[in-house]
Amino acid sequence: MKFTIQKAQLNEAIQHVSRAISNRTTVPILLGIKMDVHHDGVTLTASDTDIWIQSFVPTQTNEETVVQVEKTGSIVVPAKFFIEIIRKLPTKDIHMISDNRQQILITSGSTEIQLTGLDSDEYPSLPRISEKNSFSISSHLLDHMIHQVSFAVSANESTPVLTGVLWNLKDEILKFVATDRHRLASIEKKIPGSEGKEFQHIVISGKNLNELSKILPEQDGMIDVVVSENQVLFRLGQVLFYTRILDGTYPDTSKIIPQSYRTELSFHVKPLSDAIERAYLLSREEKTNIVRLTSEDHPTQVEISSSSNELGKVIEQLEIIRSVGEQLRISFNSKYMLDVLRVIKQDTIHIGFTGAMSPMILKCEAEEGILHLILPYRTTN
Amino acid sequence: MKFTIQKAQLNEAIQHVSRAISNRTTVPILLGIKMDVHHDGVTLTASDTDIWIQSFVPTQTNEETVVQVEKTGSIVVPAKFFIEIIRKLPTKDIHMISDNRQQILITSGSTEIQLTGLDSDEYPSLPRISEKNSFSISSHLLDHMIHQVSFAVSANESTPVLTGVLWNLKDEILKFVATDRHRLASIEKKIPGSEGKEFQHIVISGKNLNELSKILPEQDGMIDVVVSENQVLFRLGQVLFYTRILDGTYPDTSKIIPQSYRTELSFHVKPLSDAIERAYLLSREEKTNIVRLTSEDHPTQVEISSSSNELGKVIEQLEIIRSVGEQLRISFNSKYMLDVLRVIKQDTIHIGFTGAMSPMILKCEAEEGILHLILPYRTTN
Repeated sequence: MKFTIQKAQLNEAIQHVSRAISNRTTVPILLGIKMDVHHDGVTLTASDTDIWIQSFVPTQTNEETVVQVEKTGSIVVPAKFFIEIIRKLPTKDIHMISDNRQQILITSGSTEIQLTGLDSDEYPSLPRISEKNSFSISSHLLDHMIHQVSFAVSANESTPVLTGVLWNLKDEILKFVATDRHRLASIEKKIPGSEGKEFQHIVISGKNLNELSKILPEQDGMIDVVVSENQVLFRLGQVLFYTRILDGTYPDTSKIIPQSYRTELSFHVKPLSDAIERAYLLSREEKTNIVRLTSEDHPTQVEISSSSNELGKVIEQLEIIRSVGEQLRISFNSKYMLDVLRVIKQDTIHIGFTGAMSPMILKCEAEEGILHLILPYRTTN
Repeated sequence: MKFTIQKAQLNEAIQHVSRAISNRTTVPILLGIKMDVHHDGVTLTASDTDIWIQSFVPTQTNEETVVQVEKTGSIVVPAKFFIEIIRKLPTKDIHMISDNRQQILITSGSTEIQLTGLDSDEYPSLPRISEKNSFSISSHLLDHMIHQVSFAVSANESTPVLTGVLWNLKDEILKFVATDRHRLASIEKKIPGSEGKEFQHIVISGKNLNELSKILPEQDGMIDVVVSENQVLFRLGQVLFYTRILDGTYPDTSKIIPQSYRTELSFHVKPLSDAIERAYLLSREEKTNIVRLTSEDHPTQVEISSSSNELGKVIEQLEIIRSVGEQLRISFNSKYMLDVLRVIKQDTIHIGFTGAMSPMILKCEAEEGILHLILPYRTTN
């Protein structure tokens, strides 16, 4: 192969695919980036076998010549060094040439780099995917949905299916659910144009969805989502992102969500978040993160408190917007609550309780379709 | 004690002293911050026994009341939690009250914190220091001098004296030297007003000088430096910074600095730094960081190169400003060179060589008093 490419565009493509490179891979060739030079542009591919990212740099964009191809060809370059050196090259255009012996010569101004590559034929092939089941979604909406739930997946690899987010699409409603058995996050949104499309029990790694979220373009646009038997493909402009569907049966979570409440409280998000944060700082020292919420005599105020044997106590009186139903004393993991409050973009939040031992349900009044659940702690005092 | 203090000023004082807190301390009370409340203000003290930092918040600044003292007293508060919680308190003013049983109650708006403190009598006393030997220096100059040399101290604790910076003051010239046996950095500057002051062989931990540098005020001002038998005290406004003088005899480095050169090269700093950086990226993969500089046939150009058995080679032709003397081939640790180039604020640098096995000397032509030395690698090829 022999071609000249603009550094900025090559760099952008490298940044995209580099997210798939894992230093922990046991397959040496996956420490590389595959570069395929065709007459219409340059394709970069990287994978850790769990995700695959492919980014294409076309020869022309907006009538500007980005790549000039003199000879097509393929090679695998060592990713870590390639990523860093390309960023540091002195000129706007970079020239690359490689021979049959997997040697590649990179030239930029008076800088010459001779790199030993690997045979691209040894690089594993992209997952095969059937285009049968696909729909389109706004990238901003997808990003929002990922952020609402991905923090709630389990970090425990011993139940792999719980490290994923459950996807369902039916009757134009896309629903995401994540749970680690102590809390649950779910969001459902209408996807216009998805009439007749349907899938169920597709589970995608929460970590991979976070990686996808990082390469979503800042400007909103439509993304194609192709759901195949073992893989889901996200097609965002010139970038393809493949992620494996997790094996295993996702638990039925519908039954743990209470349908009515014994106590309902409405809060301003910021003061609630600040108060929980302060109580968390102390409870963290006890490793439990336990914070107690008490709604007693006062109709417009609750008490937030935590204590540590060694350090002391934090006690706050917090103004609330509304209180309905019974008085309440409940203890919960304040980190779970902070995780929820951090993703809530609304000013107010509504929390429903069905007793000190039953799940708390957090909902936004200003945005439908979002539901967060936190299981309380069973404490004796 | 009983007092009210403005959060912003308390926070600033906490930020200063918190740099002395070490989580690795074996003395439990040093995990705390000592708080002394007098009629004229509040003093915070923290230490890891190696450094001591004291910060004073006066009751009045610029005719504004910052602290209102109702009752004097002292207590030691748990540092980690205290630092974080004060920053997160909701109101501008914070009220604190403590009893004889080392309980402290912190109130801010409707937030109440009960903390268990420790007896301030148990806290070790500040180092005693004689004010006999002292001088004043501009804080910007001190910061500049620290940055020019502190990176070159040894990271190897087995020779503690080399982890420090050697200070000498004589004939109004303050000189700093740092070396790790592979490289050396030195700077000397005139200190107006230090006539008649003199000290020699004072060695101060490079790490501690970097900590000091972080709390130097952004605005230039004069700092008092008090050099005592075992300690050096830096007095910067309301903050006192004590650091221990390191034991041991600092090696005589004067003899290793060549007085004449066989080759002299002048470079523009930025292109040199960029070229070395690219060569470093490859050499780093070999763990040696070896980069070679070759000045041969061309009078206005040198070659910078590095190679890795596994990856390949980087070769660059670099324009230089001037070349005097013999042709040269020298190999050196590129990280050491980058460390020097990073602190050079001038556009050009002058490098003197006395052969492939002899020290390289880097000097700024535009700023006197700075000298950096790098020992080359003895390579066979």
